[in-house]
Amino acid sequence: MKFVSYRHQGASSFGVLLEEGIVDLPRRLAGAKDLASLLASPAQLDEARSLAASKADFALSDVALDPVIPRPGKVICVGINFVDHAAEAGRTVGKYPVIFQRYAESLVAHGAPLLRPRVSQQFDFEAELAVVIGKGGAHIAPEDAMDHVAGYTCFNDASVRDWQFHTHQYGMGKNFRATGSLGPWLVTADEIPDYRQLSVQGLLNGERLQQGRLADLAFDIPNLIAYVSQALDWQPGDILATGTPSGIGFKRKPPIFLQPGDTFEVAIPGVGTLSNPVADEG
Amino acid sequence: MKFVSYRHQGASSFGVLLEEGIVDLPRRLAGAKDLASLLASPAQLDEARSLAASKADFALSDVALDPVIPRPGKVICVGINFVDHAAEAGRTVGKYPVIFQRYAESLVAHGAPLLRPRVSQQFDFEAELAVVIGKGGAHIAPEDAMDHVAGYTCFNDASVRDWQFHTHQYGMGKNFRATGSLGPWLVTADEIPDYRQLSVQGLLNGERLQQGRLADLAFDIPNLIAYVSQALDWQPGDILATGTPSGIGFKRKPPIFLQPGDTFEVAIPGVGTLSNPVADEG
Repeated sequence: MKFVSYRHQGASSFGVLLEEGIVDLPRRLAGAKDLASLLASPAQLDEARSLAASKADFALSDVALDPVIPRPGKVICVGINFVDHAAEAGRTVGKYPVIFQRYAESLVAHGAPLLRPRVSQQFDFEAELAVVIGKGGAHIAPEDAMDHVAGYTCFNDASVRDWQFHTHQYGMGKNFRATGSLGPWLVTADEIPDYRQLSVQGLLNGERLQQGRLADLAFDIPNLIAYVSQALDWQPGDILATGTPSGIGFKRKPPIFLQPGDTFEVAIPGVGTLSNPVADEG
Repeated sequence: MKFVSYRHQGASSFGVLLEEGIVDLPRRLAGAKDLASLLASPAQLDEARSLAASKADFALSDVALDPVIPRPGKVICVGINFVDHAAEAGRTVGKYPVIFQRYAESLVAHGAPLLRPRVSQQFDFEAELAVVIGKGGAHIAPEDAMDHVAGYTCFNDASVRDWQFHTHQYGMGKNFRATGSLGPWLVTADEIPDYRQLSVQGLLNGERLQQGRLADLAFDIPNLIAYVSQALDWQPGDILATGTPSGIGFKRKPPIFLQPGDTFEVAIPGVGTLSNPVADEG
């Protein structure tokens, strides 16, 4: 099953995405508030599943997509989580995952422009698989961690490289306005029996520049969920961005940076393709 | 004028704090939604100011304080921003401020326990002055930046040192549950004509372990606001934590860490004293 968040006739909503269109959930499901809460409610999820046989309320083209979780409480990102990307970045994989934090307000939806900052030309792409948390929790054991995964979506952790390396802490280059893209939809975990079979690709104007297999994560999803949960509580709708494979722009010779007019796609067969044009911040 | 956020008889609210108690704003001011929005509205601020001559609705002791902004959209923290603290941390002050990100959900109120994590004994204190943003904005010039300051409060950026240094990115040690303390109240900017006259102290069980003058910031408040605003939009109620002076626990010989039963205070004469007991996460 696929879920989407969107605005329809100006109002925020969310629904089940079918071949023929969207089943709007707030009008069908009493008490359905937003997608994050629904993902944490087994009863509402069951009801949503039974509605997936309904007639669509409107076409996908009738809505403006939002980031699949419009305002996640947390976007927890993992750096240097593919061995070949660690090598290109001049790093080695250590004992612990490299975690950094994004604010939800840096996110844009599928189709919305990623903004090249006014203050930098070093605007780079990072294709990633994102995990969407369903059931929240603290102190989660790795063997229980996958029970907390509601589903998967695509993420572009677009990064402002010069600002990322202004100091030894790189969050500043990872939190520019309109630089994180999340979507287009969520595919529920039951449709992905083994995420390690997935692969992620990054395509610039149709040319494949990044590719990686999720089987090659240095820290796998159960261990990432468990590690972070020792520090803070996972909440429904939180995002775990699992890291990008090799092929990013600024380590290329010569470097490749995103330019206005470009289109960057994060393609994860079995999940979806997230596509964003690039525009100048203006 | 001082503002507080709190729960009264179970309901979230906010008000003006007078000598004799609290003037509850939602019951007096039509359209007053929360403190963050009020701080962005010159009209509502004027109304609140005129209500400051009112009779208090209840005593400060009748409410349970919340963090002064209960859910700031962003808590932007600055590392290594006092030269003497940079020295004790083995760092030098560079060309750009060291910025890291906290999530609002790590915050507790004045009086609430700071939780020593289950997974670490290296729980340390950091006394800081926090700026509360009123008017939002992007690409703010340093000379205009102080117009965006609604007021000041105290912040304890309590840090889990071993986790902070698990990798080269230290946000993980700065985002543990119930480790950031914000309050007790906001003092409006008009009462602090020159923040550089302020000093911040950190006291463990009454003993002063940290002290610094805000005149000694390596990156001053106008420049911090301006720098960050090039990347992302400041929003009403966002927090800028300006950095801690020297004297933190883990660089002492022998090191001092927070223990259950301790009380840590952040004292900023002219602003207030933020006090928190320490308890085990359990």
